[in-house]
Amino acid sequence: MSNSLKYAVFGSGSWATAIVKMLCENENEIGWYMRSIYTKEHLLKEKHNPSYLSSVEFHLEQLKISNDINDIASWADVLIFVIPSAFMHSELKKLTVDISKKTIVSAVKGIIPESGLLVGEHFHDIYKIPFENIGVIAGPCHAEEVALERLSYLTISCVDATKAQALADALSSRYIKTKISDDIIGTEYAVMLKNIYAIAAGIAHGLGYGDNFQSVLMSNAIREMKRFIKKMHKMKRNINNSAYLGDLLVTGYSVFSRNRMFGNMIGKGYTVKSAQLEMSMIAEGYYATKSAHLLNEKNTKKTKLPIINAVYGILYEGKDPKVTFKKLTDKLD
Amino acid sequence: MSNSLKYAVFGSGSWATAIVKMLCENENEIGWYMRSIYTKEHLLKEKHNPSYLSSVEFHLEQLKISNDINDIASWADVLIFVIPSAFMHSELKKLTVDISKKTIVSAVKGIIPESGLLVGEHFHDIYKIPFENIGVIAGPCHAEEVALERLSYLTISCVDATKAQALADALSSRYIKTKISDDIIGTEYAVMLKNIYAIAAGIAHGLGYGDNFQSVLMSNAIREMKRFIKKMHKMKRNINNSAYLGDLLVTGYSVFSRNRMFGNMIGKGYTVKSAQLEMSMIAEGYYATKSAHLLNEKNTKKTKLPIINAVYGILYEGKDPKVTFKKLTDKLD
Repeated sequence: MSNSLKYAVFGSGSWATAIVKMLCENENEIGWYMRSIYTKEHLLKEKHNPSYLSSVEFHLEQLKISNDINDIASWADVLIFVIPSAFMHSELKKLTVDISKKTIVSAVKGIIPESGLLVGEHFHDIYKIPFENIGVIAGPCHAEEVALERLSYLTISCVDATKAQALADALSSRYIKTKISDDIIGTEYAVMLKNIYAIAAGIAHGLGYGDNFQSVLMSNAIREMKRFIKKMHKMKRNINNSAYLGDLLVTGYSVFSRNRMFGNMIGKGYTVKSAQLEMSMIAEGYYATKSAHLLNEKNTKKTKLPIINAVYGILYEGKDPKVTFKKLTDKLD
Repeated sequence: MSNSLKYAVFGSGSWATAIVKMLCENENEIGWYMRSIYTKEHLLKEKHNPSYLSSVEFHLEQLKISNDINDIASWADVLIFVIPSAFMHSELKKLTVDISKKTIVSAVKGIIPESGLLVGEHFHDIYKIPFENIGVIAGPCHAEEVALERLSYLTISCVDATKAQALADALSSRYIKTKISDDIIGTEYAVMLKNIYAIAAGIAHGLGYGDNFQSVLMSNAIREMKRFIKKMHKMKRNINNSAYLGDLLVTGYSVFSRNRMFGNMIGKGYTVKSAQLEMSMIAEGYYATKSAHLLNEKNTKKTKLPIINAVYGILYEGKDPKVTFKKLTDKLD
C-alpha cells in the first residue's frame, strides 16, 4: 500500500480499466464509478469489464464499484477522471458533493468541448480547485499493454511534487515505472495534440504514403507540438521527454490507436460521418482538432500549425484529403 | 538535368541503387562503380540490380557502369560513396587517381573501422579533401520506398551551400524532396547512431517489450543522440529535424531495418555470431556500436549513453540481453 489516501477512478473505458488495474497492485480499496449499470453488474458477476481489457480479472474485495458519481466522489480523496472529454460535462453535472478540497486528476485526452478548456483548467475555473490540487496522468501507454503487464512508463504531473509523488507511488509496480513533472498544462496539451497527429498519420497511411513520409510527419509533428505548447504555456520543458515525444510516437505509430484508425479511413475515402459511424469508440482527436484550431485562431499572432490545419480542413471544412496532404507535403521538411 | 556536373555512385547495395535511381530522374549520364562483375553483367543484360531493388528497371543509356573504381572516379565531378563502412577502406585502397579536387559525398552509414573516423573526416584527413568539398546524404529514407516512388525527404549537408543545393537539385524529383544543411558532422553521427538505436529497438522487441516501452526507448534515444553529437561537434542544430529524429524513427520503427532485425535475433536468444551468420546483409550498427563506445571512452568527461552502453555490453562483452535491458529500463524515463 503506497499511502493512506483513497483513490477513485471515474470511467469504464480501456484507459480507466487499466488505471484501476495499476492501483490494484498497491491499494486495498479503490473506488470505481461507471455510468453503465450493465458494466457494473457484469463486473460484479464476471470480475472483468465486459467491453474493455476483458482479460484483466479483478479481485472484487478491492473494488468499491458504483453507478452513483456522488457516492464515489464523496468517499475518495483523489478523484481520477478517465471519461472521454466529450462526456465530461454531462457527467460532471451529476456532481452534487463538494469536491473543492479533493485532489483532482485528469487522465482525459482532450479538451472539454462545452468550456473549451483543458480538464485541469476546467476544474480550476469552474470547480475552484487550486492548481496544486490538480494532477495529470500521461503516457506513453496503451491500455492494452498494461493489461498484458508489459513494462510501461507514466508521467504524473502536479505543481505540488509531494502529491505527484504520492500518486506516482500508487500507480508504480513491477510493470509500471513513473516519473513526476510540474508541467500539468503542457502534458495535457501534449496528450490532446498527439491524437490529432495520430489522425494525420492515419490519413497519410490511408492515402498510401509510406514509412519514409511517416517519419518526416512525426519529426514535423513534434516541432509543431513544441511551438503550440510554448505559445499556450511558456515554461522550461524538454519536448523529447516521454510524456510528449514518447506519447506522440506510441499513438502515431500504433495500428491500434483509434485516432490513427479513424484517419486511415478518411485517407481511404470514407467521409468523416461514415468513418465515425463505422467506429464504436470515439476518436478524441476529432474534437481535439477543432479545439486546437480554435485556440490558435484566438491568438493575435498565430503559430504555424500546418499539420493541425490540414487535419482541420479535412475534418471540418470538407477539404479533399489527397489534395490537402499534397499541399501539406510542401510545408514539411 | 539539374546542372552540368557529372555524378557517380560507388556501391551496388540497396541504398546505392536507390540513389542511382534518383539521379536518373535528372541526369543524362551517371557513373556507377560496383565491385561485382556478376552484378555489372546482370545489370547490363537484365537492366536491374540482381540483388537489391530488382523491381527498378534502368535505362542503360543513362548509366556508365564499371568494375574499375579509377575509371569512374576520374570521369566524375561528384563522387557519392555508398559502400558499407566496413568495406570502405579496402575499396578506397584501389584508388590511384587524384580525387583531391572532386566533391566527395558520403551516403555511408557508419564509421570506417580502420581509421575510426566518419567518412567525411576520413576523406578530409587522409585524402586532404577540404571540408567545403565534402557532402553527406541523410534520410529518413528506406531504399525500398524509393523503388516504389513513395514520397521521401532527404537532407543534403555541405558547408558550401551552393554545392549542397546542386546535389539536392540532382536528387529531387516528383517523389524526392530535399533540404540542405551545413551540419555534415552532426548528420553523419546521426546516421551512424540511429543504427545502434535500431539494434536496441530490435533487442527490446525480441525480449518481448511492447510498443509502450519502444516509445520510451526512442524518446530516450533522441535525447542520448543529442548529447552525443553535441559533445562531438557543438553547433546550433534542431535534433528534431528529419535528418536526426526522422531518420531515427524510420529505422527504429521499421520491421525491415536489418539493424533492428539483427537486434531482434539477439533479443530472441541468438548469439551475436549466429545472428550475424543468419543475416546476409551487414548490420552497420554492429560496428557503429563499437565506434560510438570508443569515441566516448576517449573523452575525459564521458557523456551518459545508457542505451549505447547496454548494446555494447551485449554485442562485445557477452552480457546477457535480458539482464542488461532490465538494468537499462531503470535508467530510462
